[in-house]
Amino acid sequence: MPSIEWKPESASSVTLQKQIEGHIRGKILNGEWPIGTKIPSQRALAKSLGVNRSTVSAALAELAADGLTDGRSGAGTMVVNNTWSILAAAPPPDWRHYVTSGAQEPNLTTIQDINRAEFHPGVIRLGTGELSPDLLPSSAIRDLFRQIPERPLRLGYEEGKGSAFLREQVSNHVKTLGIHASPASILIVSGALQALQLIAIGLLQQNSTILLEKPSYLYSVPVFQSAGMRLIGLSMDADGVQVPFIEKFKRQHNAAMLYTIPTFHNPTGTCMTKERRTEFMDVCTATRLPVVEDDVYRDLWLDAPPPPPLKSTDGKGIVLYLGSMSKTLSPGLRIGWIIGPEPVIERLADIKMQTDYGASSLSQWAVAEFLAGGLYHKHVENVRSELRIRRALMLQALSVSMGDIATWNTPGGGFYVWLRLHRPLSMKKLFDRCLSEGILINPGNIYDRSTDQHLRLSYAHAPANAIAAAIERLSVECRRGP
Amino acid sequence: MPSIEWKPESASSVTLQKQIEGHIRGKILNGEWPIGTKIPSQRALAKSLGVNRSTVSAALAELAADGLTDGRSGAGTMVVNNTWSILAAAPPPDWRHYVTSGAQEPNLTTIQDINRAEFHPGVIRLGTGELSPDLLPSSAIRDLFRQIPERPLRLGYEEGKGSAFLREQVSNHVKTLGIHASPASILIVSGALQALQLIAIGLLQQNSTILLEKPSYLYSVPVFQSAGMRLIGLSMDADGVQVPFIEKFKRQHNAAMLYTIPTFHNPTGTCMTKERRTEFMDVCTATRLPVVEDDVYRDLWLDAPPPPPLKSTDGKGIVLYLGSMSKTLSPGLRIGWIIGPEPVIERLADIKMQTDYGASSLSQWAVAEFLAGGLYHKHVENVRSELRIRRALMLQALSVSMGDIATWNTPGGGFYVWLRLHRPLSMKKLFDRCLSEGILINPGNIYDRSTDQHLRLSYAHAPANAIAAAIERLSVECRRGP
Repeated sequence: MPSIEWKPESASSVTLQKQIEGHIRGKILNGEWPIGTKIPSQRALAKSLGVNRSTVSAALAELAADGLTDGRSGAGTMVVNNTWSILAAAPPPDWRHYVTSGAQEPNLTTIQDINRAEFHPGVIRLGTGELSPDLLPSSAIRDLFRQIPERPLRLGYEEGKGSAFLREQVSNHVKTLGIHASPASILIVSGALQALQLIAIGLLQQNSTILLEKPSYLYSVPVFQSAGMRLIGLSMDADGVQVPFIEKFKRQHNAAMLYTIPTFHNPTGTCMTKERRTEFMDVCTATRLPVVEDDVYRDLWLDAPPPPPLKSTDGKGIVLYLGSMSKTLSPGLRIGWIIGPEPVIERLADIKMQTDYGASSLSQWAVAEFLAGGLYHKHVENVRSELRIRRALMLQALSVSMGDIATWNTPGGGFYVWLRLHRPLSMKKLFDRCLSEGILINPGNIYDRSTDQHLRLSYAHAPANAIAAAIERLSVECRRGP
Repeated sequence: MPSIEWKPESASSVTLQKQIEGHIRGKILNGEWPIGTKIPSQRALAKSLGVNRSTVSAALAELAADGLTDGRSGAGTMVVNNTWSILAAAPPPDWRHYVTSGAQEPNLTTIQDINRAEFHPGVIRLGTGELSPDLLPSSAIRDLFRQIPERPLRLGYEEGKGSAFLREQVSNHVKTLGIHASPASILIVSGALQALQLIAIGLLQQNSTILLEKPSYLYSVPVFQSAGMRLIGLSMDADGVQVPFIEKFKRQHNAAMLYTIPTFHNPTGTCMTKERRTEFMDVCTATRLPVVEDDVYRDLWLDAPPPPPLKSTDGKGIVLYLGSMSKTLSPGLRIGWIIGPEPVIERLADIKMQTDYGASSLSQWAVAEFLAGGLYHKHVENVRSELRIRRALMLQALSVSMGDIATWNTPGGGFYVWLRLHRPLSMKKLFDRCLSEGILINPGNIYDRSTDQHLRLSYAHAPANAIAAAIERLSVECRRGP
């Protein structure tokens, strides 16, 4: 459905109706709204343009009278023509056909709704896995650029694997976690999601099977499904993914890879214990099952540092390790990394070059300077103490407002509280109701299609002073029944 | 083939041999070089480590004696084991199998060689389609960031289509070219190559056929081929692509789309005339053939502004228009855009979100400020006058050194001279010979598999004072015969 970002001028000598008619006519005639485009409802148009519905209605009637649109089908008003002349030549290409072709699956409808609603002004985002804007280091980055002359700013294409300076810093950074990776075995990517995309199209065959935790963040992004792959979920307990199933499922489904978020799991917040990590690595090594370790939340521990990454005990090179700055420093920088055996990194680097010629050199430079100068650790410490406050506010609000209708975990780090409602609900209805109250939630069925009684809450994004009231509102909406 | 970025310490008390042995042993034991990895040749190792070959040889002999490597197969030395104990459990996953699986084709070998050779220190890049580092506006960008406080720097995720501020600036920018596109019909991408990737996976079916100019830049990137598509080349003349073939080929091959670089074509430098553009649009409109117009060189006109873009005469919405900052402002920023019918842009934005959650917000901000403040036009004017000088130097050098063995065009803009040698040559040999002389060339068969007598030269990247000598060297290598 197209949108209108434009608004009519109320001070103009042209009537509002004529302005609206002219604007939509322009979109149709210049091909922005091709034939087949569904025009937003009169109600929606009136709201977004800030005018009465009768004004919109009159403007649309003019367009229909000119034969440009047709509203008789009952399915709303459609663009049916885009030329004045009956003598016009051929119709334009049928873009609808193209838009529904293509190998890539569209995002889940709920995800698309969330992506859009995130930019509604004033909405409280109670499920967003992202730091609140006031926790992002805008002023520190400004300072960095002021100091540029000391080290030259590169604006050309970077090497295929990413800037050598940044890879060196990442190598030093992961050494503190027990991972010994030379810069040659590190690939800089535009965030961990791109890492998964590269793995999907670069390493796996179309009909591959991927094991993963259930629930998992990975169910919410169609990156593997679009490449024709199947996801098989492994149950979790409080110590992490349940290991006994791995060997069985690997054999049964001929699984090609296992994807895991062992540390502050998304969405459950679970942190795999040290013992479980050992068992896990033993099984995966013995069954020769490659592992993707998504470790983007590690630095956000709140009570105690988590056990070392799986990769730090990976003597056989079975683990591809993903790190990112999106959760800790800034999602907008779009910087992450993959660490793994060098032939694998070479292959993925080649595909990255084919896909987008590498990550922004400006962003790479900023992240490298952040790591090199020790600013990163100072920043993360500050983020941790802010997150501790927000976590406390959310847990307190949940106790006050929802203790009788739900249970939840107390996460030791990361962003997420995985809420389990005592009674199932229509997730779609709850989502819509909350959104109309100005609260954006992430329903649990994004992460596990089979659940209708979970929500992923995040204490990272909502303003601290809005958390209690938002949880109370959520509680009211949950009580309104299925 | 893995690489070694490390160098031994000559001042160390540990012998060079022991240091080298230890370094390689580390790479094998921590899984960076898994079983099956081919170790670089002794000659290559000696060169990259800066030691005698005998030292390397002795170090490798130790590793072989420990059973970690095997050099007896004749195919070079391979990693065959990575554990000390014969009691070791299972071997690691067979990464070689994974690296050769995956849907994405590897880059052409020559392209991979070029990508690597670009980072050889001191190499003169005579084919690179990129501005020389001294033409990039590093200091202007530095100044921009100093002025940040006036407008807040956003570090969060941007909207799916890209930052509203940048899309507004792009909308204003293309208006000066005759394209009326509202911000809602613009998608910000990480460079034009990503635009092609999104189109391939988002709009086209796997077995689609794409028409394009022959030769074309598009032959050098496997973005469509990897998605299982066929490319059918259309002949060109001095006025651009030859129109009469379009309808025939569209019917014959049931083509789904036509990709064109009408303005300062890559690699031939051709600029489609105004008359040809009209004929072209008439045929594509009549046959309902969607067009991708790649217009990234437009602002780099050197003699006179080119005719308006195809998109500016596109009343039916058949054209997807690609623009980019990579050729004019900075490739490292990774910022480009797609303009098209809104439903198409919505679909591509959704896929972009799935792929990498959008372009770097730092880069988006910098480009928007560049456009908004008029800095962009000042910068491009400066680039144009520098390119005029370099173009003159290259054409002069060609006349002096190669007039008797080749012909070429005089480009009216962009970066490229398309050189045609009178006699065919082994492109592979010429490439290798030139590289060993410190000159990196782009053989013509990257852009048209069937030619063995073309080279794409670029006057944009090599230092101005190195062009004449490099062309002279190239001439000598060409004369050494096939």
